Amino acid sequence: MSYCVGVDIGGTNTAIGLLDGERVAAKESIPTLAGEGPDSLFDRIAATVRGLLGRCGVPGDAITVGMGVPGFIDQEGGVALNSTNLRWRDVPVVARMRERLGVPVAIDNDVRMYVYGEALLGAGRGVRHVLGVTVGTGLAAALVSDGRLFYGGGSMAGELGHIPLESIPYRCGCGLTGCLETVASATGIARQARDLVERDGRASVLREWFPGEGMPGLTARDVSRAYDEGDAVAIEVLRRTGEQLGRGLAYAVTMYSPDVVLVGGGAAAAGERLLAPVREAMQRLLISDYWERISVVPAALGDEAGVIGSALYGRDAAAR
Amino acid sequence: MSYCVGVDIGGTNTAIGLLDGERVAAKESIPTLAGEGPDSLFDRIAATVRGLLGRCGVPGDAITVGMGVPGFIDQEGGVALNSTNLRWRDVPVVARMRERLGVPVAIDNDVRMYVYGEALLGAGRGVRHVLGVTVGTGLAAALVSDGRLFYGGGSMAGELGHIPLESIPYRCGCGLTGCLETVASATGIARQARDLVERDGRASVLREWFPGEGMPGLTARDVSRAYDEGDAVAIEVLRRTGEQLGRGLAYAVTMYSPDVVLVGGGAAAAGERLLAPVREAMQRLLISDYWERISVVPAALGDEAGVIGSALYGRDAAAR
Repeated sequence: MSYCVGVDIGGTNTAIGLLDGERVAAKESIPTLAGEGPDSLFDRIAATVRGLLGRCGVPGDAITVGMGVPGFIDQEGGVALNSTNLRWRDVPVVARMRERLGVPVAIDNDVRMYVYGEALLGAGRGVRHVLGVTVGTGLAAALVSDGRLFYGGGSMAGELGHIPLESIPYRCGCGLTGCLETVASATGIARQARDLVERDGRASVLREWFPGEGMPGLTARDVSRAYDEGDAVAIEVLRRTGEQLGRGLAYAVTMYSPDVVLVGGGAAAAGERLLAPVREAMQRLLISDYWERISVVPAALGDEAGVIGSALYGRDAAAR
Repeated sequence: MSYCVGVDIGGTNTAIGLLDGERVAAKESIPTLAGEGPDSLFDRIAATVRGLLGRCGVPGDAITVGMGVPGFIDQEGGVALNSTNLRWRDVPVVARMRERLGVPVAIDNDVRMYVYGEALLGAGRGVRHVLGVTVGTGLAAALVSDGRLFYGGGSMAGELGHIPLESIPYRCGCGLTGCLETVASATGIARQARDLVERDGRASVLREWFPGEGMPGLTARDVSRAYDEGDAVAIEVLRRTGEQLGRGLAYAVTMYSPDVVLVGGGAAAAGERLLAPVREAMQRLLISDYWERISVVPAALGDEAGVIGSALYGRDAAAR
């Protein structure tokens, strides 16, 4: 079977792609419309899949389907246990989609799918042990070892965003204080910039760009823009963020001993502005035996990593 | 094959045991005499194994042998790459022992063997994902998932003793500053007690017991004894040690998501004096989803864990 379909369900949009071997032959994005419930989304996903197959002349029974869903997933049972973004609880995704499409369907957490795609066809291609992190709204990690995802008990391994660091003062949505993702995430970057400007009264071009109280609309992307204009606040925010992320990654490397660490997700658009201080911190905090054998690289597949990873995961799950 | 031999090579002594099923049928300890080189030790191990087999009436070809060696091990190649304690470099242990005994031989790092034994027959018995740490001269960890050890790239996963924590001021032998094992180890416990008494001038029964400058002879065991006499310094040292160890374990749990965390090694003799603050810190630093599904328990096999784990590892390696 050389065709496989990947479905990357996000809080706002759902991306659907048809892979022909390693190539994305066709793809489409539809609104998730989480408020309308899972069955509405499943109907629209099934219709979109049929449309893609029709356009590419692929028979409806010649595919496998893999789906990435945010939140806690029981990948063995095919159930989305708790997806806060979608307001889903105990949704039997695999059963519902199999009814609609009549082909093998598999699901897993969206970050695992993203890293699976990068490990097989992206920045981790050809590497045995791949640790991937996505720096987006939050921060999460997944490990692919010898082509297999690492799950741990309850499939809960890799919540790198929720290790509390001693020097991080922020309270996290999870209830803990100091979680890495309160700093090392798109929201964390914006928050730190706001704190330096509004709380500490530091001069910054960001103040001019976002004059309103609380700096509404300020994003991590704006901090990168300000960085490129030499703004001291933006430079400090990305350095601090890189240092904390580098500390977390040093801990993860010491536990997992990957061969490569790839950094993706929306906030990774900061690129070397973020990766340079990440590498500096890792070199400082890792035994040289680890540091000398790893590389820290940006993710390579861009927005398509989730769809590609989901498609490959669905294919590989059906083959097992 | 129901007989298997385990060899636990330490810096001072080497323990050798014959397992009959799950029972240690016979065992013996010999001096390692590291200064005399590996071949002397291999000769004496082989003679001791033959002696144990003779005593139990087991034929010399009816066994498998597993060996735990401290340091960095290439377990696939059967080579001890670098064992500082033994002053071994690139010693082909498996080949040399196979020549002598003519049976299947496997080796791995001694901490992995210890945790493997505990996972299969000790405190992790019947549990899918077992994280074990040994708190001895240093601190190290290993993970057994579904009966298999987790290795990572270069077989280097799990150096929990070498994650640097922000509030630890000590320089580590590895070259980093703040490594967890500079505090959470037998040497770390003694060091902290010395610092409180000698550097900070705190009153302590330990000062009376060890009046000499630098408090020579003071061990972690003495700190436990002082703790039991209500000594404030000893209580503070074990609380601090437990807090830092708990922080490291919280990070490890978030990465690996084990079902059980078992704490062994010499300094684990402190028992609940150490485990109580460990658990407190873990509960404070872990998302409740993790905390609620794990237990933190002392290792169960005592001194025999290394020999038992090595024996089972040799048996399982031969069966693969």
